[in-house]
Amino acid sequence: MKNELVAVVLAGGSGSRFWPFQTNKVLFPFMGKPLFYYSVMRTLPKSVSRMVIIASDSNRSYFENLKLPFPHLVVVQAEAHGMADALLTAKSMLTSCSLFIYIADHLVDSSVPEKVLAKSEATSAFAVLPGWQTDTYFPGGYFTLENDRVLSIVEKPGTGNEPSKYVDVSGHYISDSEAFFSALQHQESIKDDIYENALTELAAKTDIRMEPFQGISSSLKYPWDVLKVMQDLFAGLKSQTGKNVQIKSNVVIEGEVVIGDNVKIFENTKITGPCYIGDNTIIGNNNIIRSSHIGANCVTGFNTDITRSYVGNSCWFHSNYIGDSVLEENISLGSGAVLANLRLDEADIFSNVKSERINTNLNKLGACIGKNVRIGVNTSTMPGIKIGSGSLITSAALINRDIPDNNYVECETKLNLKPNRQPVPDGNRDNFRKKI
Amino acid sequence: MKNELVAVVLAGGSGSRFWPFQTNKVLFPFMGKPLFYYSVMRTLPKSVSRMVIIASDSNRSYFENLKLPFPHLVVVQAEAHGMADALLTAKSMLTSCSLFIYIADHLVDSSVPEKVLAKSEATSAFAVLPGWQTDTYFPGGYFTLENDRVLSIVEKPGTGNEPSKYVDVSGHYISDSEAFFSALQHQESIKDDIYENALTELAAKTDIRMEPFQGISSSLKYPWDVLKVMQDLFAGLKSQTGKNVQIKSNVVIEGEVVIGDNVKIFENTKITGPCYIGDNTIIGNNNIIRSSHIGANCVTGFNTDITRSYVGNSCWFHSNYIGDSVLEENISLGSGAVLANLRLDEADIFSNVKSERINTNLNKLGACIGKNVRIGVNTSTMPGIKIGSGSLITSAALINRDIPDNNYVECETKLNLKPNRQPVPDGNRDNFRKKI
Amino acid sequence: MKNELVAVVLAGGSGSRFWPFQTNKVLFPFMGKPLFYYSVMRTLPKSVSRMVIIASDSNRSYFENLKLPFPHLVVVQAEAHGMADALLTAKSMLTSCSLFIYIADHLVDSSVPEKVLAKSEATSAFAVLPGWQTDTYFPGGYFTLENDRVLSIVEKPGTGNEPSKYVDVSGHYISDSEAFFSALQHQESIKDDIYENALTELAAKTDIRMEPFQGISSSLKYPWDVLKVMQDLFAGLKSQTGKNVQIKSNVVIEGEVVIGDNVKIFENTKITGPCYIGDNTIIGNNNIIRSSHIGANCVTGFNTDITRSYVGNSCWFHSNYIGDSVLEENISLGSGAVLANLRLDEADIFSNVKSERINTNLNKLGACIGKNVRIGVNTSTMPGIKIGSGSLITSAALINRDIPDNNYVECETKLNLKPNRQPVPDGNRDNFRKKI
Repeated sequence: MKNELVAVVLAGGSGSRFWPFQTNKVLFPFMGKPLFYYSVMRTLPKSVSRMVIIASDSNRSYFENLKLPFPHLVVVQAEAHGMADALLTAKSMLTSCSLFIYIADHLVDSSVPEKVLAKSEATSAFAVLPGWQTDTYFPGGYFTLENDRVLSIVEKPGTGNEPSKYVDVSGHYISDSEAFFSALQHQESIKDDIYENALTELAAKTDIRMEPFQGISSSLKYPWDVLKVMQDLFAGLKSQTGKNVQIKSNVVIEGEVVIGDNVKIFENTKITGPCYIGDNTIIGNNNIIRSSHIGANCVTGFNTDITRSYVGNSCWFHSNYIGDSVLEENISLGSGAVLANLRLDEADIFSNVKSERINTNLNKLGACIGKNVRIGVNTSTMPGIKIGSGSLITSAALINRDIPDNNYVECETKLNLKPNRQPVPDGNRDNFRKKI
Repeated sequence: MKNELVAVVLAGGSGSRFWPFQTNKVLFPFMGKPLFYYSVMRTLPKSVSRMVIIASDSNRSYFENLKLPFPHLVVVQAEAHGMADALLTAKSMLTSCSLFIYIADHLVDSSVPEKVLAKSEATSAFAVLPGWQTDTYFPGGYFTLENDRVLSIVEKPGTGNEPSKYVDVSGHYISDSEAFFSALQHQESIKDDIYENALTELAAKTDIRMEPFQGISSSLKYPWDVLKVMQDLFAGLKSQTGKNVQIKSNVVIEGEVVIGDNVKIFENTKITGPCYIGDNTIIGNNNIIRSSHIGANCVTGFNTDITRSYVGNSCWFHSNYIGDSVLEENISLGSGAVLANLRLDEADIFSNVKSERINTNLNKLGACIGKNVRIGVNTSTMPGIKIGSGSLITSAALINRDIPDNNYVECETKLNLKPNRQPVPDGNRDNFRKKI
Repeated sequence: MKNELVAVVLAGGSGSRFWPFQTNKVLFPFMGKPLFYYSVMRTLPKSVSRMVIIASDSNRSYFENLKLPFPHLVVVQAEAHGMADALLTAKSMLTSCSLFIYIADHLVDSSVPEKVLAKSEATSAFAVLPGWQTDTYFPGGYFTLENDRVLSIVEKPGTGNEPSKYVDVSGHYISDSEAFFSALQHQESIKDDIYENALTELAAKTDIRMEPFQGISSSLKYPWDVLKVMQDLFAGLKSQTGKNVQIKSNVVIEGEVVIGDNVKIFENTKITGPCYIGDNTIIGNNNIIRSSHIGANCVTGFNTDITRSYVGNSCWFHSNYIGDSVLEENISLGSGAVLANLRLDEADIFSNVKSERINTNLNKLGACIGKNVRIGVNTSTMPGIKIGSGSLITSAALINRDIPDNNYVECETKLNLKPNRQPVPDGNRDNFRKKI
């Protein structure tokens, strides 16, 4: 008799490197639905009969209130201590079953789970793990393989040392929870990568296979990863227009664009898909919107350029440039504020994350801005800058460092006034007029 | 025999709270005509046979040169000392007549005077005063009433203490000048509100009625009041297009818009009425103009947004945002200059008027700028800022305080130069091109 | 037997007043061709059988590699010491011939050379010099005339002292090189204007005629002279469209516009000729381009205004105002950067050239920017500013002085952070929405 198949959702990560965003990574909203919908729900194998979710304090209540067509249980991992610890937290709920293990903030091609299960049926392997094929180095776990047999998992081998071109991602099928938990508990003396070590140990004794795939694999670790996940979610977008949409004259819409209910798009605006525009959002006159996500209840104002950016709900703009940026929610920018997205030397953009200087490997990256932020007119943020939730940035400022949560920021200025001894020209400018 | 009906125009106010505007309040131009035209001339009852104007030094010559279809006299109030003093200045010209008393900077619905006179005919009351019905507290004189009989006038009773919902406004009919002057002179020992006290005293002895009305009532006290008066004047606007108007392709005009002679409107511009555009004005490409007054001989340039604003004659713009602002005349803004109109906390905007901090009761208010001002490129003014006539503001400045008349203002800046050790990228940007 | 006609091209000037531009003046590219093409090649009389070029170190290799339909020789003037010295450098190559002498950075009407030669045939004069008719004073050499006989050349006589209204320009025909070289060598003791003195001396002994013309006469001395030469070259422009050009909807093109191969012009853009747009250049959405030269491989981005400006190859813009400016090559401007082109007092703009303060005689002049420059977002340059090659200017700076080559420039700023005690408004802005 086959074991019951239980979906195990690892959703307990702390997300501390995801600052300035307050939204839990797994619940970060894309096109009106949390990442969890795309990373787990829409890819669930049909044979799953139960779900166990290892949650964190910040997403627990979401999962507890979730309505599902099968039973589900939520346990909270006291502190984030890696995948093995998370699974062991839920051990008592996972006796004598098969497991389908999701990393909830990791998005893979939605066809992967069914392909993994199909290989498990065909091979009766102890475990089947999807392998993401990549030609450029990715700092994750690589499979050592003999054909499709997994020999081991090597964590971050470094460029040139990859044992294969396949990387370990979310969506592991494990046929026997008991054997797997034994192997996990066997790694006691090891601190890091316990989960991967357990699989390597099991690979020596059992049949573990890899199911290769190409295409989407992305996850939310750093705040700018929202842009990669967004583009991956846009991959299969199809144009769609909601109810009560008003589109004024001379609006050009190209490519795949999803437009929510009650959206208004004003004159002389161009939208180049893939794009998503949430319900009740107003796109102003003379805008250009390209490859971007705009949430619900936004107003983009006059003459705004939103390019390759994620904009959450309730954001207001006016004559801004928002390029390669992530704006969480309830953010407004004064007229002429610019989120710069390219260094003068066009080099890779770095970002300080938990006191570490990280190369984002992006040469175009604007700002990452947390919830409930206001930015004044003509203010400029430098590439890769992060602004914490609840902060107010005054006008005409140059923001060249990260701004913590709940700060009031101004650029020191000093006005010098003196008597004006220069004549003010009269209003007759006929010479200038001739040139119009 | 009925008394002769004399229109008495109180136009002697000092207007010191109207700074930075130099134009006399009563002569402030709207749609090519002074406020006096709208507040007095177009509402004059037909039975008026003479006009007495109590002027100030700054509008005296205008009134003296006025051509009217009946005799008029101009007297100058030495100093502005209230309505009673103004009237007493002209006492010798107002013997044994009926009076129709206008406060010349106060705009009321143009139907009011005839309705007031009609009630005087119907009731033979000693006086008829129009009463503006308002549901929200207004800091003016409220009527205490018994039906339509005025019992007294209570000055600024405070919210919740209003004796009725009717407020005293411009347009008093007084049947007998002699009795009224007696009552005025009887208030000798009183300092303030002599006029209102005289009416209250007369109300006890004679029949004073109120004629109620709803709708327009506004006046010019503070500079931002120009916006309220403008919107009130726009109420009945009807579209109209002058001679020799050029409108280029893809211009969208919605609502009621008055366009003067020789106006040119360039491509991709949208105008949403009510709007007024004066003679010879050029509206540039890719503009948006909403609910605004633009005077004669202006050039709005490329990509300008003028919203809910008053712009006087001979103003030049280029890629500006002018929201909820008042620009008197001969003002130009450099490219990218922004008049911010909303605080970061979206709270009410305050303004210093004669060393008093006034709540404008507006959460959207841009700048009020006097005549003959130049503002440099990329300069930002903060909400509610006032700039005096004849001042030059340099580029890239943050103007966060009022600027007096005839100042030259710059924001202290210091450029640091050092050898550039970073390579300047070559012009080949094929990777960027692919994303266009 | 007539002498052989040799074209002599004076191209050895140092161009030190042409900073910040690095390109040799004679090779400065207009519409894909060096100035030399317009000033010399396209005006060459058919009877020319040989060319001698007096070059400088910086243009020598260009001339040496030039393919011509007749023999040419290049000599290098060791140091720039005026026209006479330049000619004497090449004396050995110019024995017993007629000369047609070009000043290679001086552009005159292309019909001038043939008219000069025609007069030489008709009159058998020793020399024929073209005379540019000008009604306003020009600081050059003026002819003293008796009918069309040249009596002398008076250098910079000063306003009001002009001996005629004809100015000496490029394109001298000299029938006998030997006699001319003798006269040049005769001026030994003279330091300046040797060439003009030699002509004056010869005028007393021989028949020297002037051929008058009106119209184009301009040359590259100061960097802003590029604008004058550009407009002169635009004089005869005819519309022309290259291969594989894409023009999107609602693009308006007026006047004469030359569009190169593979150019793309995006929606809602207006181009008012005369304009030149080089190969592979992308004109973005909602631009306005007027009376300007844009080189090859440029991208103007969204919402840019380029007016009366010269833009070289490989420049990138985004929401900029470029008015009356010269941008040499490989320059990019961040979003919102503005090149201011008008003083607040609208007076003439001055520029420091080699430590001398020069009146440009222009009241509209933006920036002159050398090769390989990057300018950050929201930065403003003041009218008449020059920026040296290889310099990086950071964001939000006010550039109010010339910047030398290869500098890194920032505007000193100081951010003040304090706890934000003001509530951040929630995203519900229904009241604002009503006004949209």
